[in-house]
This record gives sequence, structure tokens and C-alpha cells, in this order.
Amino acid sequence: MADRTVDAPLPPGSVVGVLGGGQLGRMLALAAARLGLKSHIYAPAGDNPAFAVAHAATEAAYDDRAALDRFAAAVDVVTYEFENVPVETALHLRRAVPVAPSPQVLAVTQDRIHEKSYVAGLGVPVPGFAAIDTAADLAPALERLGRPAILKTRRFGYDGKGQARIDPHADSHAAFRAIGGKPAILEAFVPFERELSVIAARDWRGRFAAYDVPENEHAGGILRRSTVPARIDGATADAARAMAQRIMEALGYVGVMGLELFAVREGGEVRLYVNEIAPRVHNSGHWTMDACLVSQFEQHIRAVAGWPLGSPARHADATMENLIGHDADRWREIAAEPGAALHLYGKRETRDGRKMGHVNRLAPFGSRDSG
Amino acid sequence: MADRTVDAPLPPGSVVGVLGGGQLGRMLALAAARLGLKSHIYAPAGDNPAFAVAHAATEAAYDDRAALDRFAAAVDVVTYEFENVPVETALHLRRAVPVAPSPQVLAVTQDRIHEKSYVAGLGVPVPGFAAIDTAADLAPALERLGRPAILKTRRFGYDGKGQARIDPHADSHAAFRAIGGKPAILEAFVPFERELSVIAARDWRGRFAAYDVPENEHAGGILRRSTVPARIDGATADAARAMAQRIMEALGYVGVMGLELFAVREGGEVRLYVNEIAPRVHNSGHWTMDACLVSQFEQHIRAVAGWPLGSPARHADATMENLIGHDADRWREIAAEPGAALHLYGKRETRDGRKMGHVNRLAPFGSRDSG
Repeated sequence: MADRTVDAPLPPGSVVGVLGGGQLGRMLALAAARLGLKSHIYAPAGDNPAFAVAHAATEAAYDDRAALDRFAAAVDVVTYEFENVPVETALHLRRAVPVAPSPQVLAVTQDRIHEKSYVAGLGVPVPGFAAIDTAADLAPALERLGRPAILKTRRFGYDGKGQARIDPHADSHAAFRAIGGKPAILEAFVPFERELSVIAARDWRGRFAAYDVPENEHAGGILRRSTVPARIDGATADAARAMAQRIMEALGYVGVMGLELFAVREGGEVRLYVNEIAPRVHNSGHWTMDACLVSQFEQHIRAVAGWPLGSPARHADATMENLIGHDADRWREIAAEPGAALHLYGKRETRDGRKMGHVNRLAPFGSRDSG
Repeated sequence: MADRTVDAPLPPGSVVGVLGGGQLGRMLALAAARLGLKSHIYAPAGDNPAFAVAHAATEAAYDDRAALDRFAAAVDVVTYEFENVPVETALHLRRAVPVAPSPQVLAVTQDRIHEKSYVAGLGVPVPGFAAIDTAADLAPALERLGRPAILKTRRFGYDGKGQARIDPHADSHAAFRAIGGKPAILEAFVPFERELSVIAARDWRGRFAAYDVPENEHAGGILRRSTVPARIDGATADAARAMAQRIMEALGYVGVMGLELFAVREGGEVRLYVNEIAPRVHNSGHWTMDACLVSQFEQHIRAVAGWPLGSPARHADATMENLIGHDADRWREIAAEPGAALHLYGKRETRDGRKMGHVNRLAPFGSRDSG
């Protein structure tokens, strides 16, 4: 059977189904509402802050076929806020309704070995890597890739979870045990100058639009801050966007994608390496909510619903700061800051390491050091 | 019993109750969600597009005491999207929960005679007016105010409904019958140069913040377009905002208010007259959704929830165009326009004269004629 696609823009009143009920699903639902589209969130039991703003919600497991069938019948297109939705779930839904990005995209991006192989196969640089299926694979891989190196579970990692760094003289077997002894990938350590990302959209007809490239700072494996403009030159920004476009074309990608990159200075040149593909709206694109007329969330909804892509132009310099755990307790103070836009996710419980909200701070063009 | 007030900012997760389920309630609910606040919409049966994005919804009549009591118990503060909520409803709710703006504000603004008398009593200019209780009152009133004059029902008019213009030689009794023969107000015709409005907020502690003054164009009694900056000088803008502040102080107003003004050129001077008070977010403030970091909807939520008011600064020139009736059928075309932000309200049925959405078009500062 041919893939189901969205051939004409879904008219206002249509229903966008979203798998996943977290903050990204919530912000997708809010963006859909602005366009007069309805959202139906599907998520397993838990704290699903997207439910509070959605037209409809289904709380069910991703392998509940009956619930999936009812969901498919109730929506006009399905998308995800969460890259670890089982591929089987997406394939099942696609028998009844268009699904974007396609289940194949999930299959590629859920396995770090598949993802890196796929990207490298397109001629897009990735850090050196090796598959680690058993502890016996560690020694030859470390021999080839050097130390330090990063050991990551192949599947289901996020926000630094399922990762361990192997320093010189460190016990690599202990690191393998620390991540659960599951099939893993060993990645060469990249001595990056900065981390960048591309937030780009592609629609059903192959049109492409990318936002300005932000520069990202992580701490403890979690994104802390994204800033536009990044301290890079125009050629580097163009190269970054071209990488995203190449990958999205190859995948037949529909929707917004986040492409995480390392920028490394090698012999006076800046070289880019792909760190990770996020097949969804991305935390490093949250500044678009206030610095652009069409946010990444609206752009994603437009793309999957067959609408024209919006302009990704920004009207200000911006910094996005994540409010993690008790950072969000500062809401009163942040709400009183001129030039700051506060976003809180409505999560029931504040926990360390949990993304509770973010704040976008805007400044006129050129007021930030652009490198 | 003293009025219930919000003495400290309602923390994220608190519930803002909104009376009225139309597009204004919908945009209030979306703004509340952004701040991590929940919204509970209360509205009589009908097409209530706010329900689709609210945390909770009650469909019940405004005089259903049991439903009102359950609503009051479920929310932390109550506000309105709709100025014709019965005063009794607001008074009943205020026995249990803070209500903003106060029921007294509703009482003043629901009756055009009370409203104009109140404003005039503050020394703020209003057009000449006379109460018309019976047809016999018409002749002396027309004698005093001249023709043309505008006859309006005292209560429950909006968007040009319940209004009739009495031209020279026209049959004033026929006009009175046309608006239903109900208690009315006759207003002197104001030969205005332009229509303006002030969108301003006041919080529980009396702090005041006003957006830039837009210039408004109506057709058939319905707002078609609002533009910032208005073609007025700074002194006129300041005078307009001062009128709003004076009225809001006097009323002890909490929340966002829309103040509609006529600007008339008299002997080389621009004079301002108050046309109408809207005790709620206002259609002529919709451009703030895209041209300001804190929209009028978020500002209203901040005010009633006891949060710090946001900065009303705008970052661009803007025009808001209402999409009325089948205007909204142009959504595909508008969605493809760069520099345009489309907002659709999710109403089930398109009808002539019905506000279906709006589009904000932004342009860099100074690109519009401001003079």
C-alpha cells in the first residue's frame, strides 16, 4: 500500500493527532489552536501536561491496538512529540491515517548506530563510532577511536541518560555496566568549540525552511541555553542548514526536525559533525516562540497538516534559558523582567532535572556578540 | 463583607475561571496555558470555541446557581470575556472567589446611560447624550443634540447591533421601533477624524500599563482593522492613555480594558471623546499577540492572577485585520503570506458578520505613515 499523505491543506477544524503528552505536545496543541486546528493527544498514563490544552486526549499504552484504532479514526493526521514512540505504533496508525514524519524516520533515529550510519552514508560527517554489543567489543573500539570516548545505549537515551564517558585509564567495562550492559555505541570524543543545532521544516511537497542556527550550552547532559545568533560565520550557518536539508530530503521527512551539531576548529577551519537527529520539534528551537512570527511548533503543525510553511525569519536576537527543576521557582521574578517571555509547562510535580518551563529573552538585532 | 481580592500571585497550576466561551475566552485560555495556569471556561450552551483549549469547561446558564457554586469552588479567580454577563452572576460568584474586574464595573458598563454619565462625571469628555425611555423623549433630545444622531439600546448592544442613525428628515419614531422600542440612548453624532482605542491593564495594587494606541476602522458597525502606530501625535496618545487610567482608577478596575475613543479636529486641535468602555480584552488589541512579547490576553491573565504586569512595548508596526464571515475562507492564501500571523477561532459555522479569525501583519518600525 502506498504511503498515506496529506495532499491538500487540512481545513480549519481538522484534527491533528499527537503521540506524546509532554511539554512539546502541549506547545504543539497550543500552536494548532491558533490556526483553528484541533489537537488530539495520545499518551500513556502519567503526568501529561498536553492534555489540559488539547481538544481531546486518549490515555492509553502505545501497543493498545483498540485505542490506536479509535485514535486513528478520530484524527486527520498523526505526528509525534516524542522520538521513542514504538515504530510498530506508527506503522499501525499509518494503515488508517497519514503519519508524519514517517515511521521509517523513527526507525532510523531510534537506534544510534542506524542513525549515524545513515547520516555518514549521505556524506554528512559524524564523529567516529563503533557498535558495542558485548564487553569484548570495547577494547578494539577504544583502540580505534581513542580516549576519551562516549559510550551510549543504542536506544531510548535522552537528556544525557544512558551515557557514560570513558576517560584515559578508566575502566571501560564498568562504564558498560553503568549504562546497563545493553547494546551500545562508542563515539569518539569531539573537542568541539561550540554546539549548534538546525531547526528546519520540510513539507509534503519537499519545500524546506530553516530557522537561524542557535548556539547551545548543555550541563549534565541537559540543554541549558540556546542563543541566536550563534557565534559562527554565514558559511558555517549555511553548511549546517544544508546538512539538515540533505538528511531531510533523504528521509522524505515531513515536519520539523532538530539536528544537533558539533562545531570543531580544525586547522583554522570550522568543521561540523552531526551529533544527533531529533525527529520532532526541539528544545533549542523554543526561542522561535517569541522571536519569530511563526514558531517551530506552528511550523511543524503547518508542515504535517499540508499548510504553507511560514517564514522562519526572526525579528530579534534571543536567548532561551531552560527552567529545570527548581529553576522554575523563580517564575515571579522572571515574570517581572522586561524583555522576557515566560513559558511554564503545567507539570504537576517539580523534580530535579525535569524541564518545567523556559524563558526567552529578546534583544534588538546586533546587540549580541555574533562572533 | 469586604471584596475578595488576589493578594499574592496565584502560583502556576492555579485555575482562572472565565465567564464566556467565545474567541476572547479562547485566547485568554491559551495565554493562561503559556504561564502554566489552568483555565476553566463557563458559558451557556452554544458554539463555545474556548472549550477546546481549556483545562475544564462548564456549559450552564448564567443563572444556574448550583453550576455557579461548583465553578466557584473549582477556580482561584474569576474573570469575563464578555461584558454582558449578568451582574447577579458576578455578585454571586464573588461571595466565594475574587472576581476581576469587579461586578460594579459590569453594572456601569452594561448600561450606556450609566457608562456615559460615569465617564462624564470624571471630567472625561463624552459626546452629548440623552436618555430615551419612550418615543416622546425623541423630539426634545433631537432638538438639543441635533441631527444626525445615533440611537442605541441602553443595554446588550455590540458590533453595531441595536443601533440606528437618525439623519435629517428621517423618521425618529421608526428608528426607535427598529431598535425594538426599548430604553435607549440618543448620542450626538461625532464628526470624527479617526477612531482610536486604548488597551490598558491595571492590577490589584493599582499599577497601570497601556499599549500603544491603535487607530481603528469599522464597517457596518464591526471593527475591520486596527493599526499601530495611529496617525496621532504623542500628546494625543498620552491624553488617550490618561483617560483610560483615570477611568480605571475610578472604577478600581483590575484586568485589561478597552476604551474606544473618537478623535475630532476642533479649531486645529485634536479633541478626544469616549465612545465606549469594553470591560475586557478588546478586538482592537489583537495585534499585541504578535507585535508585543506580552499580549493583551497574557496581560489580562497576569493582572487578574496577581502577577506582575508585562511590558506593553511593541517591537514592530502592525495592522490587525478581522476575518469576518467568509473572509476566513482566505486562510490558505493568508497562511502563505510572509510577515502575516494568522489566528483562527475554531468556530463551527461560518456566518456573515461573525468574527472567524484575524490576521496580524507586521512591518519594521517607522515603515507605516505615523502622521
